[in-house]
Amino acid sequence: MKPLVYILNGSNLNMLGKREPHLYGTTTLAEVQARSETLADELGLQSDFRQTNHEGVMVDWLQEAFEKEAAVIINPAGFSFASIPVLDAIKLIKKPVIEVHITNIHQRDEQYRHSLVSLAARGVICGLGVQGYTLAMRAVAEMLREPA
Amino acid sequence: MKPLVYILNGSNLNMLGKREPHLYGTTTLAEVQARSETLADELGLQSDFRQTNHEGVMVDWLQEAFEKEAAVIINPAGFSFASIPVLDAIKLIKKPVIEVHITNIHQRDEQYRHSLVSLAARGVICGLGVQGYTLAMRAVAEMLREPA
Amino acid sequence: MKPLVYILNGSNLNMLGKREPHLYGTTTLAEVQARSETLADELGLQSDFRQTNHEGVMVDWLQEAFEKEAAVIINPAGFSFASIPVLDAIKLIKKPVIEVHITNIHQRDEQYRHSLVSLAARGVICGLGVQGYTLAMRAVAEMLREPA
Amino acid sequence: MKPLVYILNGSNLNMLGKREPHLYGTTTLAEVQARSETLADELGLQSDFRQTNHEGVMVDWLQEAFEKEAAVIINPAGFSFASIPVLDAIKLIKKPVIEVHITNIHQRDEQYRHSLVSLAARGVICGLGVQGYTLAMRAVAEMLREPA
Amino acid sequence: MKPLVYILNGSNLNMLGKREPHLYGTTTLAEVQARSETLADELGLQSDFRQTNHEGVMVDWLQEAFEKEAAVIINPAGFSFASIPVLDAIKLIKKPVIEVHITNIHQRDEQYRHSLVSLAARGVICGLGVQGYTLAMRAVAEMLREPA
Amino acid sequence: MKPLVYILNGSNLNMLGKREPHLYGTTTLAEVQARSETLADELGLQSDFRQTNHEGVMVDWLQEAFEKEAAVIINPAGFSFASIPVLDAIKLIKKPVIEVHITNIHQRDEQYRHSLVSLAARGVICGLGVQGYTLAMRAVAEMLREPA
Amino acid sequence: MKPLVYILNGSNLNMLGKREPHLYGTTTLAEVQARSETLADELGLQSDFRQTNHEGVMVDWLQEAFEKEAAVIINPAGFSFASIPVLDAIKLIKKPVIEVHITNIHQRDEQYRHSLVSLAARGVICGLGVQGYTLAMRAVAEMLREPA
Amino acid sequence: MKPLVYILNGSNLNMLGKREPHLYGTTTLAEVQARSETLADELGLQSDFRQTNHEGVMVDWLQEAFEKEAAVIINPAGFSFASIPVLDAIKLIKKPVIEVHITNIHQRDEQYRHSLVSLAARGVICGLGVQGYTLAMRAVAEMLREPA
Amino acid sequence: MKPLVYILNGSNLNMLGKREPHLYGTTTLAEVQARSETLADELGLQSDFRQTNHEGVMVDWLQEAFEKEAAVIINPAGFSFASIPVLDAIKLIKKPVIEVHITNIHQRDEQYRHSLVSLAARGVICGLGVQGYTLAMRAVAEMLREPA
Amino acid sequence: MKPLVYILNGSNLNMLGKREPHLYGTTTLAEVQARSETLADELGLQSDFRQTNHEGVMVDWLQEAFEKEAAVIINPAGFSFASIPVLDAIKLIKKPVIEVHITNIHQRDEQYRHSLVSLAARGVICGLGVQGYTLAMRAVAEMLREPA
Amino acid sequence: MKPLVYILNGSNLNMLGKREPHLYGTTTLAEVQARSETLADELGLQSDFRQTNHEGVMVDWLQEAFEKEAAVIINPAGFSFASIPVLDAIKLIKKPVIEVHITNIHQRDEQYRHSLVSLAARGVICGLGVQGYTLAMRAVAEMLREPA
Amino acid sequence: MKPLVYILNGSNLNMLGKREPHLYGTTTLAEVQARSETLADELGLQSDFRQTNHEGVMVDWLQEAFEKEAAVIINPAGFSFASIPVLDAIKLIKKPVIEVHITNIHQRDEQYRHSLVSLAARGVICGLGVQGYTLAMRAVAEMLREPA
Repeated sequence: MKPLVYILNGSNLNMLGKREPHLYGTTTLAEVQARSETLADELGLQSDFRQTNHEGVMVDWLQEAFEKEAAVIINPAGFSFASIPVLDAIKLIKKPVIEVHITNIHQRDEQYRHSLVSLAARGVICGLGVQGYTLAMRAVAEMLREPA
Repeated sequence: MKPLVYILNGSNLNMLGKREPHLYGTTTLAEVQARSETLADELGLQSDFRQTNHEGVMVDWLQEAFEKEAAVIINPAGFSFASIPVLDAIKLIKKPVIEVHITNIHQRDEQYRHSLVSLAARGVICGLGVQGYTLAMRAVAEMLREPA
Repeated sequence: MKPLVYILNGSNLNMLGKREPHLYGTTTLAEVQARSETLADELGLQSDFRQTNHEGVMVDWLQEAFEKEAAVIINPAGFSFASIPVLDAIKLIKKPVIEVHITNIHQRDEQYRHSLVSLAARGVICGLGVQGYTLAMRAVAEMLREPA
Repeated sequence: MKPLVYILNGSNLNMLGKREPHLYGTTTLAEVQARSETLADELGLQSDFRQTNHEGVMVDWLQEAFEKEAAVIINPAGFSFASIPVLDAIKLIKKPVIEVHITNIHQRDEQYRHSLVSLAARGVICGLGVQGYTLAMRAVAEMLREPA
Repeated sequence: MKPLVYILNGSNLNMLGKREPHLYGTTTLAEVQARSETLADELGLQSDFRQTNHEGVMVDWLQEAFEKEAAVIINPAGFSFASIPVLDAIKLIKKPVIEVHITNIHQRDEQYRHSLVSLAARGVICGLGVQGYTLAMRAVAEMLREPA
Repeated sequence: MKPLVYILNGSNLNMLGKREPHLYGTTTLAEVQARSETLADELGLQSDFRQTNHEGVMVDWLQEAFEKEAAVIINPAGFSFASIPVLDAIKLIKKPVIEVHITNIHQRDEQYRHSLVSLAARGVICGLGVQGYTLAMRAVAEMLREPA
Repeated sequence: MKPLVYILNGSNLNMLGKREPHLYGTTTLAEVQARSETLADELGLQSDFRQTNHEGVMVDWLQEAFEKEAAVIINPAGFSFASIPVLDAIKLIKKPVIEVHITNIHQRDEQYRHSLVSLAARGVICGLGVQGYTLAMRAVAEMLREPA
Repeated sequence: MKPLVYILNGSNLNMLGKREPHLYGTTTLAEVQARSETLADELGLQSDFRQTNHEGVMVDWLQEAFEKEAAVIINPAGFSFASIPVLDAIKLIKKPVIEVHITNIHQRDEQYRHSLVSLAARGVICGLGVQGYTLAMRAVAEMLREPA
Repeated sequence: MKPLVYILNGSNLNMLGKREPHLYGTTTLAEVQARSETLADELGLQSDFRQTNHEGVMVDWLQEAFEKEAAVIINPAGFSFASIPVLDAIKLIKKPVIEVHITNIHQRDEQYRHSLVSLAARGVICGLGVQGYTLAMRAVAEMLREPA
Repeated sequence: MKPLVYILNGSNLNMLGKREPHLYGTTTLAEVQARSETLADELGLQSDFRQTNHEGVMVDWLQEAFEKEAAVIINPAGFSFASIPVLDAIKLIKKPVIEVHITNIHQRDEQYRHSLVSLAARGVICGLGVQGYTLAMRAVAEMLREPA
Repeated sequence: MKPLVYILNGSNLNMLGKREPHLYGTTTLAEVQARSETLADELGLQSDFRQTNHEGVMVDWLQEAFEKEAAVIINPAGFSFASIPVLDAIKLIKKPVIEVHITNIHQRDEQYRHSLVSLAARGVICGLGVQGYTLAMRAVAEMLREPA
Repeated sequence: MKPLVYILNGSNLNMLGKREPHLYGTTTLAEVQARSETLADELGLQSDFRQTNHEGVMVDWLQEAFEKEAAVIINPAGFSFASIPVLDAIKLIKKPVIEVHITNIHQRDEQYRHSLVSLAARGVICGLGVQGYTLAMRAVAEMLREPA
């Protein structure tokens, strides 16, 4: 049985490639999904890649990940900065949770600098573009090999 | 016609019993519902117990309570701290609104200390565990007996 | 082909006329819609008037406006103050975006004073009651006549 | 041997009924005492109801409660907001301590919003009027039935 | 007798068209005056359009408006952010006062974000360029038609 | 029956004349009392002059003033800055309450700048030395002559 | 030669009696002037009573008072809170300077709570209505009798 | 005549040994008193060791120390953080005043980090447990040997 | 045609030499003017030296400098810290603007530490006494020699 | 010619494995170096791995990296939070700079939460333990393959 | 084998006796060293007394103390307030660490009030002049006698 | 004997000309040194020009300047904002100390706006580019001619 990893994407990431491309680049989310799934395969992981603009749906998915004992790679996007429901749902997860931001949020406007999600995630990768997803996948694979 | 009370539960409370049990205890939300309904019956109240992870649904329910002239017991959970839509919907309600938190939020991390909902609720009970629900039910029953 | 304008209304505005009438007045949202549509017609604009209590739905609509190259008049209501997803979705829009608040939010309680949406909207009208919608419609019509 | 509960009242509560009645109501402290003692009896508790305007006396009483292994219901009133001696004395108590405020302090002026006592009390009830005392009594009775 | 409207302009607006044109555009204040007077005529209003770099003169004019029972459209410009004398003078006015800013001040540097004048004006229009003046004129005309 | 005025002095004022004389001067409290009583007589007032280092005693005296319907001149001294019990007791008083500070507290160190008592007193006199007491007495006499 | 006292009044005080009468009362500035001049005469002082809405004029007058070695009673009104020029001009004065506010500024909105002028004035009287002027006159007379 | 040293202990220190022993240790105040008196004798000092839970009593004792020209070792405990009366009374003392805290207050919760007493004491010793008292005694003895 | 430099002086600088001489020294403004004019001559510059206590006049002069394409040396004095009109007028100037303060404002009281003018001036010289004017003149001369 | 990567380690990282192992783990810096060099080889990169406790040495090394056109992986450790010299030196570097923290700094005490280095680094990886180094190496390798 | 104590002195302490003698006194560091060594001998301790102006050297020495299992008395001086490297190095030490400041830092300017070192040191002595060193030595001796 | 002036340059200034040239220009530090030495000669001063990236070295040099009774021109660069050791060393100097910044630090990012060094330097010149050095040299020459 291969370990399961959810790759969960928050608000407006369905617009990746169209949205503020000087910040986020021109790669689309479909391409990110393809690369993530390929790498997951290589690393012997089972992956499930999703996107939502609805905070409640994100919470439901995180609870589902908890029930299925999945690890989580999350780009919470707009849910990063003020969503206690997402923060609380992440605290449920027992497997590694890695937070990814495409941009270096510490160099953006004040309202994008302080991620609540970072208070509960095991690790954070930011500013490395869409490569952040594949690095997070490698990190998860490594962590799942560690003894608990 | 028995007075109506909504008991509304916010994000992640469907995980009660599984979620951070050192904080929230091991009682499940189904058990809380059972106790609440029993006590409502004893006190001559009609009750409606619900949970949602979706802020918008919580707002819809609060508007429904307003339309039905119900009192409200609300554990807003993750919607307590940054949700102006929930705050505004509570301001609609003319009947008593009592806010319940299972934990003593004043002893938790900064992001859990300042409930916006408290700015509109008539009263607040926190830190008394799931007993907070039944105490709130008694308070509502008493308030509904008061002359307007 | 007439230019398209979305008029988007956030949380609890479906309660307009019933909700804190000393603040918001007694005009209903249906009346606001009627006046907006009439004026849009006069000004040669095609209009689409909507309301939602769900942040995620608001984000979806804004993305739709972006796809259809519509201008946007938005009364974000409860989504004004803490919703990064709505802010980010507004940043997508290339056509003019005008934010409307029925009340003068600068004279309200602290939690209603700082709109995040204002960080991305082209202009803001507040405190002019429901007339704010028609003034915003005139402003949009004017802006769409400007060379890009 | 019946378990002992102290009901301790802080500064200016001897003026209850006369003091800002639009905030605190017209019930006197003697009436609160009567209701509390009646309910304590019903619940099989031994009660001791007191009031003082002197911080030092409040500290002495809390130390006495500690020595006698009493539970405590405290309306610290004016001692809530800046009294480290009262806070420290509450930390001594091993039995449940429940803080009661007649008004919803979160809706009052800034200097009444942050109770230091809440940092040490097990639970807090506010905004439910003098009924807060009887609800606290019920909560104490329940907690004393719990296994340690 | 036609209702009177003062259109009062604060510091450095005599430089409009020359002053930071990337922010304020190239329309001159004379052109704004012409458009305002034309629209006032159409709407059946008597208008009086002025500019000053002197805070004291602005206060005198506002007192004059109070004495003449005029409505006021004010672009306080540099007097917006720290002038209590102007704020106090605006509080005198019984007729509608509408504050106009050509730019969206919420997107500017910190020292331009918090208008004191907004604490007393009935409504605020910002970021709509010089069109803000004519929209404010329409709003005033509408408000003067309302029963007091 | 002559109107009654309490002149109440807070902590360390019994040391007046010895205590930081570069700040407080060399006049003793006994001398202040003598001057106050003489002037009260002249103005047809009955006076009661007291000092305490105990916050609880000050609260008791203020409650007594409330019961006797006395006006109050209070130099709260060390009780000015953090005592909610004193603030609450002052709110009880229906007759005029005037706060006096010998020094200009706005020019002192941070911890002496913000008097809580000023939030409830009718007026404040500071920085005029011990003459502040007699000016306050004159103000009280004048206010008691006003129709309620 | 009788000692000279300037009584200087800041912005909008020419509107006294008409301006927010629930705050400032209905006495006019002319009446205040009459009372002040009468009392000055009684106390053997020469007085000069003025009002201006212009900060620069207030600075000029304060410099004139410095040159003439006059004491100053100043109600800086709108110049209290942000005017460094007025603060600096007051620092010039060697004779006593007493600041008067008709209202208790500590109970007003945030922008009226912190007077810069208090950082340089010898003493402050606030909240005692227009009687503050005559009390200040008495204080000045007393201070001018003191040995330097 | 041997120099006199007061060793004054604030609120809840009578509970030393019983109170939060993981923080304060298990030594009782009686043992601290014994060690202090023994060392005082050795160092040729006359000592007076006291404890109170009443702020006013602490102020009285400090005034007494001032009158008797005693040096002071004070563990203000709960009076450290918000008591201006204690701070003011310490300022009276001409002889050395040394503040002792058993714990390192800089490592405790926010409300225990900023001692007002430190603004007036000559020196501060914290975090060295009950040994802080004997070190303070040595420091006092040394200081009293210094020329004034 | 010699390049033009305005040397503009703000509030209370006409009192230089008399005003707080321990801070500002005893040189008069007339002497500063003489030295400035002499040096301007030597450096081949045409100078215009002025002082005003009126913010509006300062704004008018800065606009005049803009119209005449003059460089500006400005000691804004009391207009430094809260005057947006002066800040905005300085932003108009295309030629070099150098801000001079006689004292080192960073070592003064809080209200003198943050110059708004520094947000728009090219450079700032402070704490070098009246020599700051001549150094600024040299800097201007140098800058005017630079290619644009 | 293989591209060069500096891996620079700040203060106290020579103690890795011994230092707070519950936070930093038991891997030593020598082991990290070995893994980094092995991976660099695999990825076709030339690496230079160093550690220093001296801020000035770190600045020198960063300048050297700039001169040699090296990419940089930096774990600034204690230099992260207050070192402007390190921040400025990083701004020199034209090649990618990736900041690594072994722990998730957002979950640590306040003084460890805000890295200045993040204001200049391209990306940040934290909380992934020593694996952060190898992920950063992969990211650098990828970035160096990108067209500039 | 006698227990080892490092006495480490930070920046500018080599100037003791010459540096701001009104604050630090006239005793030189050599004299402090002599007294410390004498007392160490008496107490059966081996001492090593050093001073550096280089933060990195201080870190090296603290690591050395850790390796040698020495206790540490540290006057971090200028390294107290912003040096995370020193703070982190102190956290390494398993033996007692006592922080000494010659002056009472709580009475100094803002930038000297908050020592980061106090977050890790066992205890702090400040304001007792150079005697602080010998008191710290006694405290260390006592602590080393305690069972671990 | 010619008076001695140290010109001391802090971190990263050895990179002048290469480092962020849009901010700092293209002049090298060697050129600045040449100009400074030439002018020093002209003004009859002996100069010593140095640069270091090591805070401790800067402290050593400042102590050396103190010992040699030299005046100091310092561009502290990265040591300006958080270095208490440099601040303390500057306080040692009895001769004039002038701080120079090439850019106008008040217009830069937050972390560059508040120089600690300005709290001790006699004067500050910023934003005048490398000309700031020569202006500072002139100022020093003038100050050394003043009677002490």
